[in-house]
Amino acid sequence: MKKPETTAAGMQADLIIHDAFVVTMDPEYRLFPSGAVAVAGGYIVAVGETSEVLGRYSAARMIDGRKKLVMPGLVNAHTHSPMTIFRGYADDIPLKQWLYDHIFPVESAFVHPANVRLGTRLAVSEMIRSGTTTFNDMYYHVNEMAEVVDQSGMRAILTESLIDFPAPNSPTPDHSLRFTEEMISQYRHHPLITIGVSVHSAYSAAPAVYRKARELAGAGNLPFSTHLAETRWEFDLIMEKYGVTPTRYLDDLGILDKGTVLAHAVHLTTADMELIARRGAGVAHNPQCNMKLASGVAPIPLLLDMGVPVGIGTDGVASNNDLDMFDEMRVCAFLHKMNTHDPTVMDARTVLEAATAGGARLLGMGDVIGSLEPGKRADMIMLDLNQPHAHPVYNVYSLIVYSLRGGDVKSVMVDGRMLMEDGKLLTIDEGNLFDEVENLAGEILAHRAELMARRLDHQD
Amino acid sequence: MKKPETTAAGMQADLIIHDAFVVTMDPEYRLFPSGAVAVAGGYIVAVGETSEVLGRYSAARMIDGRKKLVMPGLVNAHTHSPMTIFRGYADDIPLKQWLYDHIFPVESAFVHPANVRLGTRLAVSEMIRSGTTTFNDMYYHVNEMAEVVDQSGMRAILTESLIDFPAPNSPTPDHSLRFTEEMISQYRHHPLITIGVSVHSAYSAAPAVYRKARELAGAGNLPFSTHLAETRWEFDLIMEKYGVTPTRYLDDLGILDKGTVLAHAVHLTTADMELIARRGAGVAHNPQCNMKLASGVAPIPLLLDMGVPVGIGTDGVASNNDLDMFDEMRVCAFLHKMNTHDPTVMDARTVLEAATAGGARLLGMGDVIGSLEPGKRADMIMLDLNQPHAHPVYNVYSLIVYSLRGGDVKSVMVDGRMLMEDGKLLTIDEGNLFDEVENLAGEILAHRAELMARRLDHQD
Repeated sequence: MKKPETTAAGMQADLIIHDAFVVTMDPEYRLFPSGAVAVAGGYIVAVGETSEVLGRYSAARMIDGRKKLVMPGLVNAHTHSPMTIFRGYADDIPLKQWLYDHIFPVESAFVHPANVRLGTRLAVSEMIRSGTTTFNDMYYHVNEMAEVVDQSGMRAILTESLIDFPAPNSPTPDHSLRFTEEMISQYRHHPLITIGVSVHSAYSAAPAVYRKARELAGAGNLPFSTHLAETRWEFDLIMEKYGVTPTRYLDDLGILDKGTVLAHAVHLTTADMELIARRGAGVAHNPQCNMKLASGVAPIPLLLDMGVPVGIGTDGVASNNDLDMFDEMRVCAFLHKMNTHDPTVMDARTVLEAATAGGARLLGMGDVIGSLEPGKRADMIMLDLNQPHAHPVYNVYSLIVYSLRGGDVKSVMVDGRMLMEDGKLLTIDEGNLFDEVENLAGEILAHRAELMARRLDHQD
Repeated sequence: MKKPETTAAGMQADLIIHDAFVVTMDPEYRLFPSGAVAVAGGYIVAVGETSEVLGRYSAARMIDGRKKLVMPGLVNAHTHSPMTIFRGYADDIPLKQWLYDHIFPVESAFVHPANVRLGTRLAVSEMIRSGTTTFNDMYYHVNEMAEVVDQSGMRAILTESLIDFPAPNSPTPDHSLRFTEEMISQYRHHPLITIGVSVHSAYSAAPAVYRKARELAGAGNLPFSTHLAETRWEFDLIMEKYGVTPTRYLDDLGILDKGTVLAHAVHLTTADMELIARRGAGVAHNPQCNMKLASGVAPIPLLLDMGVPVGIGTDGVASNNDLDMFDEMRVCAFLHKMNTHDPTVMDARTVLEAATAGGARLLGMGDVIGSLEPGKRADMIMLDLNQPHAHPVYNVYSLIVYSLRGGDVKSVMVDGRMLMEDGKLLTIDEGNLFDEVENLAGEILAHRAELMARRLDHQD
């Protein structure tokens, strides 16, 4: 391990990773094939060639980055993390049937505090292991999620999903809204967790719910999320009910301004896209979920051309079936090349941008995270390049998006704190976690068997 | 570690893996959540519940399979393994330009024996690490590939690609054909390597080449491979030149019978599909490559309905960009759900079938490998389930196809021999492999820079 020179002007950092392949994703897309990153007080204080950084900084902790790639942590722009407990529970069926016949019934029976904690523990463990450092979540029992996320050391926007019918922890959307207000005030000063506001969707929440929720988010300058036009069914339903497209419907409610994250945005007219671009809202794109449920293809290359902020999300694990953003990036690139019949669209760097700096901007964190630049918080990941699929490296963006995998991530830092090192989680005790999850899955299957038996009885 | 009972009728195996989640992919799709597999003389001799297998067999070597999943090794039905040296060399550009401007020029300069060996070493290392045990290859310098594959212990069909213009190691297709004949005779008795016959494509090889090549394959009852209708450009070219579709053109040459592997088969008319089904040829589907190069979507669900044998391939790494069959399975499922607007097509088990038993049948090895059944050769892989993304397990096929990754493979056996154990390769010395590959990439980039400079000179 090299020792940093201590020059007359030598400055002290907490930690320096040196001799790594550093991919900054800064506005100049600087690359340092033998680079270093210095971290102090949770901030990135220097990024550059190893010799240059070590000429200016020394640190108590030096990490040898040889045969490693260092890049910004990935930003999962849309997920429902506690749903890990439903991974693989109902696959290869249509979205509406999936949601109404399979997911909603087990959610109402099983989404209680202990299980939300369990699912969130499994999710944060999986996300950290695969290189995600920030995520934007929409689910229920956000207080339980927040406690688990706080322990994990991840950065997150957490929201309670407002919905018209009774949620697992709330009889009405007004009740959820008051709960969101409490949570906002409770976490107002948390360094890593932001409580945001979300409404499930135009087909599952009344206009008044949207108005009140948007008002709450606007008052606190908080991120706001909602599902938009995920399926053709939703598009047709809103057209029939309100005579306008789902996008136009949300615009009429004042939802499309800056700070709003539109999840999916699959079924958009050209006018819808222009409207989104004009108003300033952004899109969280979920390519694998949209493909798996055959929902359609979001017009991401067009939205990017129009200047719409775009991030990439995994959506919930029940429809993906993992939280691996590397997978998601690769499929994102492939999907749009295929869909537009143009192999030049969504090149690797554009995709990586959406999963890092672009996602950060979408979530209103563009000044804080998303790239390796002095002054930003130190959210970064280190991948092992000492593997056959990581060679040769002609183009490092191609390597990251088309060849590397979540399992290649070995170390993860959020806000200057190591959450995983050499494959070992430092903030999460996986102990009996997987056994607990399997026990719960056993209960869920027994419940389903009982429900099905009851249905058969009714049919007799 | 449990000791097997030795009963009066106790039989001796070489090795038993016990207490694993065993996925057989046999005709009854039997699953043993606490199962065992016994191996003797390179054959699988028993598969079943651990207690049942240990009641009949004992073995010197007992492998504890707890928290592991055991399944058949994956069959990569179409690849060009030495092309690993071009991983990421030219991405995000159209296929024809990719092939003619980028790949062919560097191939003619760099595809010589030492580099073919190097690329094949990288490929077998990557394939074993990600759970592939058998692959069907089409490239040049097949003798060099065969030596590396022999050392690796993998099972493979290797073919010299016949093409009209001078190949890196052969001035004419007739020369390549004679070389293929020699290689066939040299490897006739090899337990794992089959030398097959291949022709590059209808657009790059004359009718006479196809006829002679097919005759050679037919005489030796050897597998035959060719690219078919990968792009719209190829479809239109053949239509214009011969007045028939590429599929019909190959049929007129007598190519479509049983034993032929048609790689890609993207642009097919309904009559083409019926013709393939009637004649008995099979299809090697390469979903990621087809998406990445925006070539189109092969009508795999329809072909399967018609009873056409279908396997899954990665194609070469230059257009993928890895050899990870787990990736390929996942994208295969997602692609067809999206393309048909039907989330029920290509369910997880159907996809896994194509990557195991189906691929084996396609390659004429259906009686030998592809499933875990007594009497088949012992080609199997063991994956680590002690990870967050491997829980819960409601449906093990969903888990394998939608959640597991190549990096989860920890042990690999081919023909009863361990090629990787607990993540350590046993037959391949990775030593300086990656450095050698990076050095070669440096030479290739320098060559490209020189070619470009020359082009600029010509333009001046």
